[in-house]
Amino acid sequence: MAEKKEKIMIGIDLGGTGIKIGLVDSAYGILAQTSIPTQAERPYEQVIADMGRAAAGLLKDHGYETEDCLGVGVGSPGTVDSENGVVLYSNNIRWDHVPLAAELQKYLPLPVYVNNDANCAALGETVKGAAKGCKNAVFLTLGTGVGGGVVINGAIFEGGHPGGVELGHIRIAAEGRRCTCGRMDCLEAYASATALIQDAKKMAKEHKDSMLWELCGQDLERMDAKMPFDAAQAGDPYGQILVDAYILYLADGITDLANIFRPDIIVLGGGICAQGDKLTEPLNRYLKENCFGAAVSYVPQVVTAQNGNDAGIIGAASLVGTA
Amino acid sequence: MAEKKEKIMIGIDLGGTGIKIGLVDSAYGILAQTSIPTQAERPYEQVIADMGRAAAGLLKDHGYETEDCLGVGVGSPGTVDSENGVVLYSNNIRWDHVPLAAELQKYLPLPVYVNNDANCAALGETVKGAAKGCKNAVFLTLGTGVGGGVVINGAIFEGGHPGGVELGHIRIAAEGRRCTCGRMDCLEAYASATALIQDAKKMAKEHKDSMLWELCGQDLERMDAKMPFDAAQAGDPYGQILVDAYILYLADGITDLANIFRPDIIVLGGGICAQGDKLTEPLNRYLKENCFGAAVSYVPQVVTAQNGNDAGIIGAASLVGTA
Repeated sequence: MAEKKEKIMIGIDLGGTGIKIGLVDSAYGILAQTSIPTQAERPYEQVIADMGRAAAGLLKDHGYETEDCLGVGVGSPGTVDSENGVVLYSNNIRWDHVPLAAELQKYLPLPVYVNNDANCAALGETVKGAAKGCKNAVFLTLGTGVGGGVVINGAIFEGGHPGGVELGHIRIAAEGRRCTCGRMDCLEAYASATALIQDAKKMAKEHKDSMLWELCGQDLERMDAKMPFDAAQAGDPYGQILVDAYILYLADGITDLANIFRPDIIVLGGGICAQGDKLTEPLNRYLKENCFGAAVSYVPQVVTAQNGNDAGIIGAASLVGTA
Repeated sequence: MAEKKEKIMIGIDLGGTGIKIGLVDSAYGILAQTSIPTQAERPYEQVIADMGRAAAGLLKDHGYETEDCLGVGVGSPGTVDSENGVVLYSNNIRWDHVPLAAELQKYLPLPVYVNNDANCAALGETVKGAAKGCKNAVFLTLGTGVGGGVVINGAIFEGGHPGGVELGHIRIAAEGRRCTCGRMDCLEAYASATALIQDAKKMAKEHKDSMLWELCGQDLERMDAKMPFDAAQAGDPYGQILVDAYILYLADGITDLANIFRPDIIVLGGGICAQGDKLTEPLNRYLKENCFGAAVSYVPQVVTAQNGNDAGIIGAASLVGTA
């Protein structure tokens, strides 16, 4: 008699450079994974064919049949019509109205769920990660840009129309910084890793006596988002100014989101989160002081994401697990 | 044989000064209404007893029995636990954890739904008003403060915990204005009628040659939120500066909300909305230029509310009609 297998899920993280594919169990443990290059310049049919074949191959290689799977979740960059599984547009992979779910089902005859990658990461942290067990969470990712996702009642909140929940694109200051979206002074223009690096370069250039100038090896092009934190930690006043300002910008964005969504928890993702308490401790202090009605109402805790490199696969699979 | 009556709804608008009570038909037409003073300094049991008796009396006076009613909706100021019908706290009427639904049911043995008054106004505009037929709407009311409500999929969006959806309390500028909530530079500190009046007083005081100084009868205490618009309309440059700045603040808040909720429509309420196109035309222009992904995604229209003085009753009744 054949051993009765628990149903598994397939999580696919579609990126600009590579596609990560994982087999995930019901506790969101990754059983097996593989990755293939995206080569996004090709017709989308070829990209999706490779994706589907690689996933089918991964299943087979690990002794699973299609019937052993509950479904496939795909996290995609850009704006997604999740109801129809269509990637409406993505600058990252240059897709325009690509019927990802329908196309992928040619290779994987399973339910396919597609959502924006940051939305998936948000949901993923609520099924396994920093927000596990939380029904309501705001997830903010601090990277090249500032993205995010919102989980309400255990499901991804998508707003009324595709293009909503652009958490990095709320106005947060008034220094006249042009955001990548074209508007002035969005959170992204202050709280992305890119913004912090820009600020650090400027500071190092103007203050050659700063430790920043040493940390980047006197080459501004080598500046990264960790260096201001390292300089501040080592007592460099210029590093401290950068870190304090960065945290204040971020704190204001987080406070806005707490006042709007009042979630159980606020989860920060992206490389800057390696700073841990150095980041979350002052953010939580600011939120406790500035959140609307903080004296009488629930103030969410700010924490760092836990799914790390697995966030893409777990997040995509969580679309299946919570469907 | 008795005439078969259509079921009606009771809408109750609980205010700091008065309580408005209306009988509403299924098309949200007001069949009859009455009002009583709140006298909020009394024990809440007395306030609610008066409310219940007045509503029961209104029913009786117009030939209705309790059984002719679908239910009762109450719009309350402050923070409401809508699931349990409890007013958690309201500065306005100084209530703290008042079990409004349970108490009111002593006088009206009907389903009682309670929500925040701005949330009710938002929902009311989607059942009869400027957003009629829209499933998703953001409602922003510009009065003493800036309040609002969000309707998603035809229901009030309340966030994860009571105290969310505080749309007036997102940071919008950086002039160092202290908001009533204690935080610096909230939308409310720039886009409320109160803020506009403050700005107009300052302008009139500094520029006695301004028409503003004449319009208020050379008495700053008589300044209102209409005067800057009137001055601008008449060609006064100081009035124009005020109006332009006010609209820009408001436009930034609206753009933030569009980027987060991407609703079908954005409805503005409060006295300032009497300005109509003078307000909405530049706001829509700004939104079209600054909304995230405006070139490729849905940009909501900004309109003014239509329910006017009936907004409280219709909004409260819409809690029943959409339940």
